[in-house]
Amino acid sequence: MVFDLIVHNGTLITVNPAFEIIEAGMVCIKDGRIKQIEATPLSSPLPNADEIIDAKGGIIMPGLVNTHTHLPMTLFRGLADDLPLDVWLNEKIFPAERNHITSDSVHWSTLLACAEMLMSGITTCCDGYFLEDVVAAAVSEIGIRAVLGQGVIDFPAPGVADPAKNIATAREFVQRWEQRTQLITPSIFCHSPYTCSEKTLINAKALTEKHGVIFQIHAAETRNEWNQLHAERESTPISFLDRIGVLDQNTLLVHCIWVSDDDIGIIADRGAGIAHCPESNMKLASGISPVPKLLETGITVGLGTDGCASNNNLDLFHEMDVAAKLHKAHTFEPTIMDAATVLKMATIEGARAIGLDPKIGSLEIEKQADLIVLDTRKPHLVPMYHPASHIVYTTAASDVNDVVVSGNILIKDRKMVAIDVDRIMDKVNEIAFNVRI
Amino acid sequence: MVFDLIVHNGTLITVNPAFEIIEAGMVCIKDGRIKQIEATPLSSPLPNADEIIDAKGGIIMPGLVNTHTHLPMTLFRGLADDLPLDVWLNEKIFPAERNHITSDSVHWSTLLACAEMLMSGITTCCDGYFLEDVVAAAVSEIGIRAVLGQGVIDFPAPGVADPAKNIATAREFVQRWEQRTQLITPSIFCHSPYTCSEKTLINAKALTEKHGVIFQIHAAETRNEWNQLHAERESTPISFLDRIGVLDQNTLLVHCIWVSDDDIGIIADRGAGIAHCPESNMKLASGISPVPKLLETGITVGLGTDGCASNNNLDLFHEMDVAAKLHKAHTFEPTIMDAATVLKMATIEGARAIGLDPKIGSLEIEKQADLIVLDTRKPHLVPMYHPASHIVYTTAASDVNDVVVSGNILIKDRKMVAIDVDRIMDKVNEIAFNVRI
Repeated sequence: MVFDLIVHNGTLITVNPAFEIIEAGMVCIKDGRIKQIEATPLSSPLPNADEIIDAKGGIIMPGLVNTHTHLPMTLFRGLADDLPLDVWLNEKIFPAERNHITSDSVHWSTLLACAEMLMSGITTCCDGYFLEDVVAAAVSEIGIRAVLGQGVIDFPAPGVADPAKNIATAREFVQRWEQRTQLITPSIFCHSPYTCSEKTLINAKALTEKHGVIFQIHAAETRNEWNQLHAERESTPISFLDRIGVLDQNTLLVHCIWVSDDDIGIIADRGAGIAHCPESNMKLASGISPVPKLLETGITVGLGTDGCASNNNLDLFHEMDVAAKLHKAHTFEPTIMDAATVLKMATIEGARAIGLDPKIGSLEIEKQADLIVLDTRKPHLVPMYHPASHIVYTTAASDVNDVVVSGNILIKDRKMVAIDVDRIMDKVNEIAFNVRI
Repeated sequence: MVFDLIVHNGTLITVNPAFEIIEAGMVCIKDGRIKQIEATPLSSPLPNADEIIDAKGGIIMPGLVNTHTHLPMTLFRGLADDLPLDVWLNEKIFPAERNHITSDSVHWSTLLACAEMLMSGITTCCDGYFLEDVVAAAVSEIGIRAVLGQGVIDFPAPGVADPAKNIATAREFVQRWEQRTQLITPSIFCHSPYTCSEKTLINAKALTEKHGVIFQIHAAETRNEWNQLHAERESTPISFLDRIGVLDQNTLLVHCIWVSDDDIGIIADRGAGIAHCPESNMKLASGISPVPKLLETGITVGLGTDGCASNNNLDLFHEMDVAAKLHKAHTFEPTIMDAATVLKMATIEGARAIGLDPKIGSLEIEKQADLIVLDTRKPHLVPMYHPASHIVYTTAASDVNDVVVSGNILIKDRKMVAIDVDRIMDKVNEIAFNVRI
């Protein structure tokens, strides 16, 4: 067989169930899938292939999976920091969205977000926002893999002036994208249990069930949300969502900070996944999700960066490092959230949380060829005793050298192959000039 | 006047007392010092200069000040992670030091650490370790600025087989380096109040007083240390150090996690500075230093990375981001540790903590020309509304493009000008090969 692509001469971190690491490994790819994984032959030549990527002794690993983004909010990166949550949201972010979220700004900001993610080794994201049709078109243009959720909220929103049409808009979005490309999986993103009515949540969930897609929702993020749900519904956010029947294996709960042991039991019983966004939670001072306990209980937890308005970047290498350290500090237990656990959260467990683990999240035969190559020939990566530890505790996004999605080389030697990044940055800067004023 | 060097065409973050930011600014340098700071002339040519660095619209800012390192421990980067503190120290780090810390390994590991720091925008560090003569020679070779503390501990240590000679060794070190170069300031680093006797601490402090240099000590890092001091001396670590008279403006206390309100009052009264190392503290699960309260009380707090065995890198950009977020999460207060506060900790306040604020830490006339240029033309730095926020929350070490120390260009376009980094990495890898076995 002549392969389409071979990536070789690097330490292979498979993140397969045995967490195998192959020194001087090789991945052979055909028709977008991984067909062979093994040590690079020492005495014989490489198999035939149309294209070869030499990892030059670096690391070859699965592309990272970012389980929670709001891609168009990249436009608001660093617009408002160090503010109380209500001031940040009501005085800064909501007005900025009202005034500056248009099809044009969503288009260019999404392209920028995708460029940033790819340059940072993210090959799949799970997004939720409005005007998601425009997001999907931009994502397609870049060629990154994504679960894209049309936003549903019971207030006027960009592209959905009348909230009575939020479910219909989401339905059209899902129908339009469900068979369109193998890289995009549509989804519905309900904003939260305090901004969507019970009826809206139930209707949205029914729609995702009908189409077999993921139902995403911010849940149990802040103390205020917990207090409000408790006052209005005599429930915790999680028990409320469970009572109305929206928790199951196709549900992705984002944040899950204010969860009791009972809530954790419910989530585990229903099989819902969680997107953990430690940097956003820390920056907004929302609290600290009990992730070690969630993992102990057997819940699937992926990592997410959240949007750029609250992080302020889309860097899962940084997020891995912070996740590993935050929970050690919080629990006084240096052995929890070890490097392998956190690396799995950023790859295979993230894929599982968004329903894509049969296709991606690890380097295994017949999976999609979504992989990245890290350049480890840099002072901050020398010496290297344990590659998984290096990935979590010292590798930076800028160490990503090559990025392959579904067998296509999107980044080679740290350059985007087919995308004019300068034009994207110029366009976003132009739009941002008006946001600034 | 013909300047030696002009750095222009970038947003100037001065970190001067008024925290002035000059868009399209220019810094003119002569004889290693800053002679002129102003907006780049629009209609007239630049002043005459032998050399020009064009910041290309990026950021020009003071070099970062890393207030706590153990440079030679870069050899042990990632050797042992995710372990209980006693296992990490007694079963991993101490044996590794006994077997592998030699003049040769200290030389090459220090060169590597300095290369990493410069590539990450750090122009000054404050180090404490053994064989500090060898450290100083390597630091001189690189041309970075440093406060270097010969280690003092009442156990056999590398280069000091007989602990009875620890003070004499420190004295010789200080005498040898006190007038030798303007870039190196000698110091003494007592390991901790539980590994040095009262007599050792008092003698070491007397020696630093005599020479007018900084007395460094790990203090109040772990709960065990607190318990031990409480049992043996009926004191907190801080009140013990105060009682024996070692706390004053020339004392740098490293960590200060287990400190009471009384301890904080003592530190403030004595005018001692603090090196805050959040990533190391988190990774080792030592606890969280009450930094917002320390700052409120008027204590000088700088940022430090700690050694690579417990971080695992020397990246103050990452450290700034984590410091800003950690304390927000810990206090549920999103407005504390704002970007400007944290940026000052990594520059002028760090300089103040190690006694170098009259010379470095900000871009001001007659200060030493220690500065860095950030390349902001990258997806993760677009758009930019507030430069200080960008520096703390999204800039990465790899965005550092040029580095100047005392007017000398050490890094230009992300390449070390005079140092063969490949040779350093090869040498450290060779040494690490034996550590691994």
